[in-house]
Amino acid sequence: MRIDELDTPVLDCDLDVLERNIQQTADLCRRLGIPLRVHSKSHKIPEIAHWQMDAGATGICCQKVGEAEVMVAAGIRDILIPYNIVGAAKVDRLLRLARRATMTVAVDSLETAQGLSAGAAQIAGRVRVLIELDTGGRRCGVQSPAAAQDLARQIVGLPGVDLQGVLTYPSRREAKPFLDETVARLRQDGIAVHVVSGGGTGHEAISQEIGCTETRSGSYIWEGLTRVHGRDDLDSNRCPLRVVTTVVSVPAPGRVIVDGGMKTFTSYPPIPYGLCLEYPELHIVGMSVEHGHIDSRASTHRFRVGERLSFIPLHGGLTTNLHDKMVGVRGEQVEVVWEVAGRGKIR
Amino acid sequence: MRIDELDTPVLDCDLDVLERNIQQTADLCRRLGIPLRVHSKSHKIPEIAHWQMDAGATGICCQKVGEAEVMVAAGIRDILIPYNIVGAAKVDRLLRLARRATMTVAVDSLETAQGLSAGAAQIAGRVRVLIELDTGGRRCGVQSPAAAQDLARQIVGLPGVDLQGVLTYPSRREAKPFLDETVARLRQDGIAVHVVSGGGTGHEAISQEIGCTETRSGSYIWEGLTRVHGRDDLDSNRCPLRVVTTVVSVPAPGRVIVDGGMKTFTSYPPIPYGLCLEYPELHIVGMSVEHGHIDSRASTHRFRVGERLSFIPLHGGLTTNLHDKMVGVRGEQVEVVWEVAGRGKIR
Repeated sequence: MRIDELDTPVLDCDLDVLERNIQQTADLCRRLGIPLRVHSKSHKIPEIAHWQMDAGATGICCQKVGEAEVMVAAGIRDILIPYNIVGAAKVDRLLRLARRATMTVAVDSLETAQGLSAGAAQIAGRVRVLIELDTGGRRCGVQSPAAAQDLARQIVGLPGVDLQGVLTYPSRREAKPFLDETVARLRQDGIAVHVVSGGGTGHEAISQEIGCTETRSGSYIWEGLTRVHGRDDLDSNRCPLRVVTTVVSVPAPGRVIVDGGMKTFTSYPPIPYGLCLEYPELHIVGMSVEHGHIDSRASTHRFRVGERLSFIPLHGGLTTNLHDKMVGVRGEQVEVVWEVAGRGKIR
Repeated sequence: MRIDELDTPVLDCDLDVLERNIQQTADLCRRLGIPLRVHSKSHKIPEIAHWQMDAGATGICCQKVGEAEVMVAAGIRDILIPYNIVGAAKVDRLLRLARRATMTVAVDSLETAQGLSAGAAQIAGRVRVLIELDTGGRRCGVQSPAAAQDLARQIVGLPGVDLQGVLTYPSRREAKPFLDETVARLRQDGIAVHVVSGGGTGHEAISQEIGCTETRSGSYIWEGLTRVHGRDDLDSNRCPLRVVTTVVSVPAPGRVIVDGGMKTFTSYPPIPYGLCLEYPELHIVGMSVEHGHIDSRASTHRFRVGERLSFIPLHGGLTTNLHDKMVGVRGEQVEVVWEVAGRGKIR
């Protein structure tokens, strides 16, 4: 089937570009000598996770237990959830996954660790944990090496919970003193630190430089989308994701309406929404829920109803979360239609 | 089951408030003497559409053929799609629906009308159309009464397409001359104008005032969410929708992280994201994909990991599009768990 036989709007992925992006970051990490752990939330598709593993990733990340359930069912066997798993229902699901795969989760409080331990006792299970450090990202994480040491001392006494090391995001040079002091304090206490997990697409070399034992990257497969919000850096030779739309109205000179809006494109970041491959001079100036509003005044092309326009969307992880299916294409041919199996797994 | 037995994040709907909102707008339109056509895209749940019909709505709107397929399958028999349906695949689906329900669609170009006519010829079907007028909304629609007249003259010659009248959005007083002149021009040409469809939650009285034969409303069931972006106007006695989250981290004084982010809340409008029911003094200051970042400095409450916080989200239609299920509650009890059957129907 040819791509133009698909009804729109439709989420497409150029498989040649995707494979090149997967290979490039895998090669980079191999050269740097740092293990790569890939984030499946960027695509939510088990086969892409397997491609990343085949290229050399040592494991994957999921952000929710529901996403991990999808990936374990698809045969992935080493998963880090860099997230505090809180509440008996989720902890039970996590511990059952831990019987089928190596599962590691973040903790930044005794309450979270105690919840894991209580759940482990229920089913005689075990789970690996990393203490999350807030080294400047200002999201979750303990605030100091001393706080990490205090928490580590408490965690090692909890049954069913195996402390493996520490985790932070993003990897930054400024984080090194925090990481070094934390590792030293834990080792002083006789706690083995097997894992220092850093992350961030584009931060692979810094992860290696600051002493991480692995680096987590996700959006690198979409290259540029989440990192670059400006139009100038979007390049169809590097960005494999595209939303193909149809012009449904050309109501007035300079105004073109396509059949994808906020349900198709995500509204984050709010502008410029995307780059048109066929006519890069087009500007998406607004989105209704189901309409994309395009200013075509900079174009000499005479747009007509029924014409197709393809856009590189700006946030891969949020865009894939809006679509039930993603179509993998080579040139103009459809090669695979994937279910976005991890879509909507918010729990 | 009690609401606090549900794992989070979870989308809840207070059924008492929902029913009151449905009844109030139905009563308003009855008093005004204008038929109400309700927009199912706001909720995407067939049972709610039936409640709206039971309260007096004369039909529903869907924004996509896929949404209409869900609603026809659930027994709804009068559907307007105020959207240009473009492309043979969608037109074929539309015309097959038109055998099972009264289907009406918008057109603003001869190309769209010709596509419908060509599809109708394929299956010996018929579909009703309204000419969309851009009376100032600056989205789709013909630009003048004369343009509407030209298009109408062309449409009446097309087999399989039954011109019923005109449509605009939103209903505004300034639109009256455009509407009146268009209707007069069509009637001069001997074209019966059965329908003048206006719309917009809160515009019901204006629709009546400017001579519409029906008014389309959708977000009224969530009362305030899409119309009021400021916190002060959110009121849990009027807004039935809420996202229940769990605190997963209290990493530093004044900072609380909950387990819902941009995949749970929508990132539109970008601030303030939502209003906390339990602690209205909280401010959601940011969203990552899976984390909600809350500034708790204005609160004297000492937040702890595991605590539940409920938020009124700001855009009903986009929020329901992120969730596979919605839970209907009365007080603290779960009464129904709905599949959001129209979610993700982007085609």
